[in-house]
Amino acid sequence: MKNIIVLGSTGSIGRQTLDIVRAFPNELNLVGLAAGNNISLLDEQIQEFSPRYYYSDAAYTPDNRSAKYYSLADMARIQEVDIVVVATSGSVGLIPTLNALQEKKQVALSNKEPIVMAGHLIKQYERAFGGTVLPVDSEPSAIWQCLQGEDSEVRRLIITASGGPFRNIPYGELHKVTPSDALKHPTWSMGPKITIDSSTMMNKAFEVMEAKWLFNMDWENITVMIHPQSTVHSMVEFIDGSVKAQMGPPNMRLPIQYALFYPERRNNLQIPRLPTDSSYNLEFQPLDAKDYPCFEIALEYATKGGTFPTVISAVDEVAVQSFLDNKIRYTQIPEILEQVLSAHTNLTNPTLEDIITTEIWATNKAQELVSV
Amino acid sequence: MKNIIVLGSTGSIGRQTLDIVRAFPNELNLVGLAAGNNISLLDEQIQEFSPRYYYSDAAYTPDNRSAKYYSLADMARIQEVDIVVVATSGSVGLIPTLNALQEKKQVALSNKEPIVMAGHLIKQYERAFGGTVLPVDSEPSAIWQCLQGEDSEVRRLIITASGGPFRNIPYGELHKVTPSDALKHPTWSMGPKITIDSSTMMNKAFEVMEAKWLFNMDWENITVMIHPQSTVHSMVEFIDGSVKAQMGPPNMRLPIQYALFYPERRNNLQIPRLPTDSSYNLEFQPLDAKDYPCFEIALEYATKGGTFPTVISAVDEVAVQSFLDNKIRYTQIPEILEQVLSAHTNLTNPTLEDIITTEIWATNKAQELVSV
Repeated sequence: MKNIIVLGSTGSIGRQTLDIVRAFPNELNLVGLAAGNNISLLDEQIQEFSPRYYYSDAAYTPDNRSAKYYSLADMARIQEVDIVVVATSGSVGLIPTLNALQEKKQVALSNKEPIVMAGHLIKQYERAFGGTVLPVDSEPSAIWQCLQGEDSEVRRLIITASGGPFRNIPYGELHKVTPSDALKHPTWSMGPKITIDSSTMMNKAFEVMEAKWLFNMDWENITVMIHPQSTVHSMVEFIDGSVKAQMGPPNMRLPIQYALFYPERRNNLQIPRLPTDSSYNLEFQPLDAKDYPCFEIALEYATKGGTFPTVISAVDEVAVQSFLDNKIRYTQIPEILEQVLSAHTNLTNPTLEDIITTEIWATNKAQELVSV
Repeated sequence: MKNIIVLGSTGSIGRQTLDIVRAFPNELNLVGLAAGNNISLLDEQIQEFSPRYYYSDAAYTPDNRSAKYYSLADMARIQEVDIVVVATSGSVGLIPTLNALQEKKQVALSNKEPIVMAGHLIKQYERAFGGTVLPVDSEPSAIWQCLQGEDSEVRRLIITASGGPFRNIPYGELHKVTPSDALKHPTWSMGPKITIDSSTMMNKAFEVMEAKWLFNMDWENITVMIHPQSTVHSMVEFIDGSVKAQMGPPNMRLPIQYALFYPERRNNLQIPRLPTDSSYNLEFQPLDAKDYPCFEIALEYATKGGTFPTVISAVDEVAVQSFLDNKIRYTQIPEILEQVLSAHTNLTNPTLEDIITTEIWATNKAQELVSV
């Protein structure tokens, strides 16, 4: 029996994590739930699972008085917990991730921002304390699966990208895009922030940064290819030219379940299968970074390291929310990103404090630009 | 330094195996070469590699008198040999394979007939003596690579098939096909027997039989899909629905090299890479067995086990050679196969002697039908 807590239980990944817990009641034991403002769903979840610990951003007291209120940071340190699922969004997952690693726990990390902002600290904590980060996202999970049993050198990672809803729209027309256009993802059903990030390819830039840290790769050996069907979730090319790909219909339950039971696999009929009785085509195209300015700008600065990745993460959070709130146009997302990045004085090898200070600075700076 | 011998050194796989030996002169040491009738090429190879042992079907004495003549059966037992590459064609690889396993050697098996005819004996020898068969063919090598590091249950193997040169030709027109039509394979450059087997899909039936034994699978969990680009060499679906595929441009050097260095991989610029700077499409279609009568008949009988697989292998050898010699039409290959199979009295759990006796019976029976 593995004891797990889910931080971000009312979001898309959180809800699907609970589906996996429901499918394996004798193997997974939910001991804590943490949510933001969706109190009605959190309440349902608490009634169903009777966790020992809970957290919410909004004011809420469960009927079930036996559940104890804990902060996110404290919940990640609870002794009996084996796996902390970090399915929060934005930077709030960072401190819980570090705390869980310090307590030698497994961190099933769906939230990309912690590793984007503080990849070097996360790796330091893993080495120093013995906890491990397990990726919960299709692309890094695909790479992780492809690396199993392989001790030989990796030549290249090929991260696939659906290309999002605007793949065939010329950049000159993107200023007219509305939030509802951008929220129509062709292959994946996800939360609003990640869906917008997916349309701008910022999400893919985050995955490149994440892959660099998770798999200890050099930037030049991580390639992104457009693959509109989202069936091949990513590929690994080994030193002998052999390429392994991990495939399946787009569905987050597989990477969630893989992390929760790693290194074992479990039969689960909730997870759809690749067909063998019907035809399908898989297309692969090189990515032209010029079509996706968020991707291009993010990686231009991310490769310099230091606090630039934190700035990228913080500005993107403000800019995407402002676009969703109709405060800025779609094409202003990369403009604001570039303005804040070019105004930033990079700090190399930043401490946690540097990262938090930079995040506040970048958030404020982005908010100023949005309000102009 | 691994000592290897190559049985079938002048054939397509044998020559490519020597390319790998040339690429790693400090790791692979060629101690024996065996060929059929291509004496001029064997002579060149003996001059280049100075092996201690040689064999040829045709009369031949090398200038280099230090090389000793050994039979195939004896060469597979030579004490200092680590890996026996069985790249012969037809059934001649069977006895050397069993002898090498008996001496605890690794058998890099490209020749499918030994495992088709005597899969149960090969597995018995592996268990009893401790030698191991390593597949040297794109499809089983792909499956083998995908299984590395995976201890969980396999739900299904998906073997890919290019579909051969007649994929889009209606069966009613195939009686007009000439040997030179059938020898034009769309994606692979191989020897004549396997190229014809590839066009009839007999080769794919052999791979299904081979996969059953190599990977201990039930027949119903091995699926074949048409994949005209031959880029995905095969796939494995695990119990959780996750599919791993092994990919690369069609090239036999990769599976050869993988077997020779297993479990390690080696950088080798002879092996082409999958592109990331150009677009490509991968198509997958269900196989309709009715389009490929050799495949359908072979698997109908192979699943009954016993000596039927030996009959299939022996008849196919005669029928394909007769077609190449313009003695029978292309569509007579499955006809002769079915006639001999329906005339055969199956022996279950056959001994090596039963298999050899059956092979002789089936060869004679097929030759009678060809001569009518």
